[in-house]
Amino acid sequence: MNPVKVGLCGLGTVGAGTLKVLARNAAEISARSGCDIQITHIGQRRENPDIDTGTITISRDIFDVAADPEIDILVELIGGTTVAKELVLTAIANGKHIVTANKALIAEHGNEIFAAANAKGVNVAFEAAVAGGIPIIKAIREGLSANKIEWLAGIINGTGNFILTEMRDKGRDFADVLAQAQALGYAEADPTFDVEGIDAAHKLVILASLAFGIPLQFDKAFTEGISKITTEDMGYAEELGYRIKHLGVARKTEQGVEMRVHPTLIPKKRLIANVNGVMNAVLVKGDAVGPTLYYGAGAGSEPTASSVIADIVDVARTLTADPEHKVPYLSYQQGELSNAPVLPIEETVSAHYLRMTVDDKPGVMNEISKIFAAAGISIEAIIQKEQEEEDETTVPLILVTNRVIEKQLNRVVAEIESLDFVYAPVTRIRVESLAG
Amino acid sequence: MNPVKVGLCGLGTVGAGTLKVLARNAAEISARSGCDIQITHIGQRRENPDIDTGTITISRDIFDVAADPEIDILVELIGGTTVAKELVLTAIANGKHIVTANKALIAEHGNEIFAAANAKGVNVAFEAAVAGGIPIIKAIREGLSANKIEWLAGIINGTGNFILTEMRDKGRDFADVLAQAQALGYAEADPTFDVEGIDAAHKLVILASLAFGIPLQFDKAFTEGISKITTEDMGYAEELGYRIKHLGVARKTEQGVEMRVHPTLIPKKRLIANVNGVMNAVLVKGDAVGPTLYYGAGAGSEPTASSVIADIVDVARTLTADPEHKVPYLSYQQGELSNAPVLPIEETVSAHYLRMTVDDKPGVMNEISKIFAAAGISIEAIIQKEQEEEDETTVPLILVTNRVIEKQLNRVVAEIESLDFVYAPVTRIRVESLAG
Repeated sequence: MNPVKVGLCGLGTVGAGTLKVLARNAAEISARSGCDIQITHIGQRRENPDIDTGTITISRDIFDVAADPEIDILVELIGGTTVAKELVLTAIANGKHIVTANKALIAEHGNEIFAAANAKGVNVAFEAAVAGGIPIIKAIREGLSANKIEWLAGIINGTGNFILTEMRDKGRDFADVLAQAQALGYAEADPTFDVEGIDAAHKLVILASLAFGIPLQFDKAFTEGISKITTEDMGYAEELGYRIKHLGVARKTEQGVEMRVHPTLIPKKRLIANVNGVMNAVLVKGDAVGPTLYYGAGAGSEPTASSVIADIVDVARTLTADPEHKVPYLSYQQGELSNAPVLPIEETVSAHYLRMTVDDKPGVMNEISKIFAAAGISIEAIIQKEQEEEDETTVPLILVTNRVIEKQLNRVVAEIESLDFVYAPVTRIRVESLAG
Repeated sequence: MNPVKVGLCGLGTVGAGTLKVLARNAAEISARSGCDIQITHIGQRRENPDIDTGTITISRDIFDVAADPEIDILVELIGGTTVAKELVLTAIANGKHIVTANKALIAEHGNEIFAAANAKGVNVAFEAAVAGGIPIIKAIREGLSANKIEWLAGIINGTGNFILTEMRDKGRDFADVLAQAQALGYAEADPTFDVEGIDAAHKLVILASLAFGIPLQFDKAFTEGISKITTEDMGYAEELGYRIKHLGVARKTEQGVEMRVHPTLIPKKRLIANVNGVMNAVLVKGDAVGPTLYYGAGAGSEPTASSVIADIVDVARTLTADPEHKVPYLSYQQGELSNAPVLPIEETVSAHYLRMTVDDKPGVMNEISKIFAAAGISIEAIIQKEQEEEDETTVPLILVTNRVIEKQLNRVVAEIESLDFVYAPVTRIRVESLAG
């Protein structure tokens, strides 16, 4: 059987899982792939006595792996974007194929890496970089290759989804659940990457490039976190038939491409609204296939290893193929990428949930609806509550608008906030119907 | 750009969709595939004046397409298993690659077709044969190639799922909804294939082979339809926290492989329990990745065409590849298929929902529980109802058992049915937790 020699850099959670699954399922993997995948060289900067690496050569300098003339494929699992980028570019220069789980590396430096790989005729596979074990990259790039992709929306950060699920199910506050997620090891000590949507934006940028054939443009993704979501807003959302999820949304319009990560009200009858806890899911709308959804574990040792190994098998299969018959890195052939602009958030279109605190007196709703009507924005739903306590003089007023360009909504909200019976700021959350 | 010439046999719903999507999305498809996919020959036994075939050569004898020396790929969309089999084997003998949407053909004659294709070194792709537009075959065969697949469960017949969804949502009877489904064109005039589970069994047999690396064994699949499901049982299922779905279930155990299509109670909190109407979904449990779910349109012109075209692109990419580097037809290399036996239904293991009509008198539950206890079967849930009318002398008694080998349950049910205070037959529906 055809041996394929693999160098593995980084023996953290995913690296250890990769070794473990490759060993445990060796029979299945070789029966499927028709080749004998051998990890022959490990690059590991610090010793990890907990992992049995058997007789595999270990190098403390990971660049020794990139220089190893024996290996066909280098698997980059060290994370980060500085050393990882240098390692990957060095390995490519040495003619190695690359498998990586590094979303930040691909989102921020993918264009450069793919150009270098294309020049050397080598493959770069990164299924594990988005949504862990879910084969979403393969689905978009190959499974839906007949479609114009119209939009996609994903729950692509498990920590954020865990926090929102707990807040909703148990009526607990954001800070409280975040502390628990940190204790459980779901959230890092510095949770910014997860809760502010940076991790999700890395993944969204990759998905948008695959879907629409545009270069990776991480700096143009709009990102809004979940730290300001309250159980109060969750309650109103439920009352209106919605659930609040932290979504990555990418949409192709005539004007360009929207790429945005933000809390979103979605109809609770949608399957994706029922994806709970740390699980991930991506909903993709193709013009021919309609809506399709892909669900599974978005992180973790073995789920991520599942995608790393699937990539190794894919790359092993095309080791001898001529480059023009390989699946292109970003789904579209290198010369065929589109220059469709990524739209600034002001130019994107969404429906909106607006919660305002207003004086409890006659005429308030009338004044507010006049402003919306003048701007041509229609109001799709309203919740107007009685005072909860006798001595309160303000009441909450909740509105859901139709779809409107964001700069127009900004003007209207500013006008409303300037009214003397409205207490600024108005709470705003985008609403997506995700209708097929 | 590399031209790939395709012959298309059959211009029904899917064939027409394939022509339409290939024309509409030509720019995207060639930018992704790097090749120019041209339908150069159509085999169409009867003229269809509604479809514009432009300047494409049309043959009334579809075997002229299989003999056309110009074409690289033959797309079989004529359906059925007799002429379709002869057409596909003829095309393979002529060195053509095959793309087909024909589940019956693959499930019943796939072993022979793959052997012939393997001998000629050509590809046979059949993504459209299972779950329409959902790239489920690609997901199992490539995306999850690192995993031991433990089990899978799918809603893989849209007509059946539409009927069950309507029955539940509107409290309507099976026969009533079936008539509506026929009027809407979802169900055929002879609905046997859909409602008795034969169509689902064709798809399940294919999925089981891909998941477990066994030859296709359609004759060994167990099939039970949905025509006996009542709104009464649906109500009790809901009360117990379940929903009734018509599932195809395949499971690998130490004893062999279970392949069964039957109505199933599944916990309503599972995502797949919330797949409604004509939509399809397949839940796959891999040992490394955990549970993953794939959802989308399981039928229809353009969704199915989406998979047909994705297969054409895949096959076009590997036209020049050496056979040992291609993805194997059934996920495992031809020489590596397992001889694990398919278990007869009596040897399979499930939990069970049992509804019995019993005399309303003291001691009944005690006698029945003694029988279960003696057989070592535990009862996980009970609903015992009061009489609805004063003058009734019988009451319904509903039990959910733990997981038990079916032959053991058969003995216990026979014993219960022989009791003089139980009115045979006992209604039985299998229960699957589908726990990750």
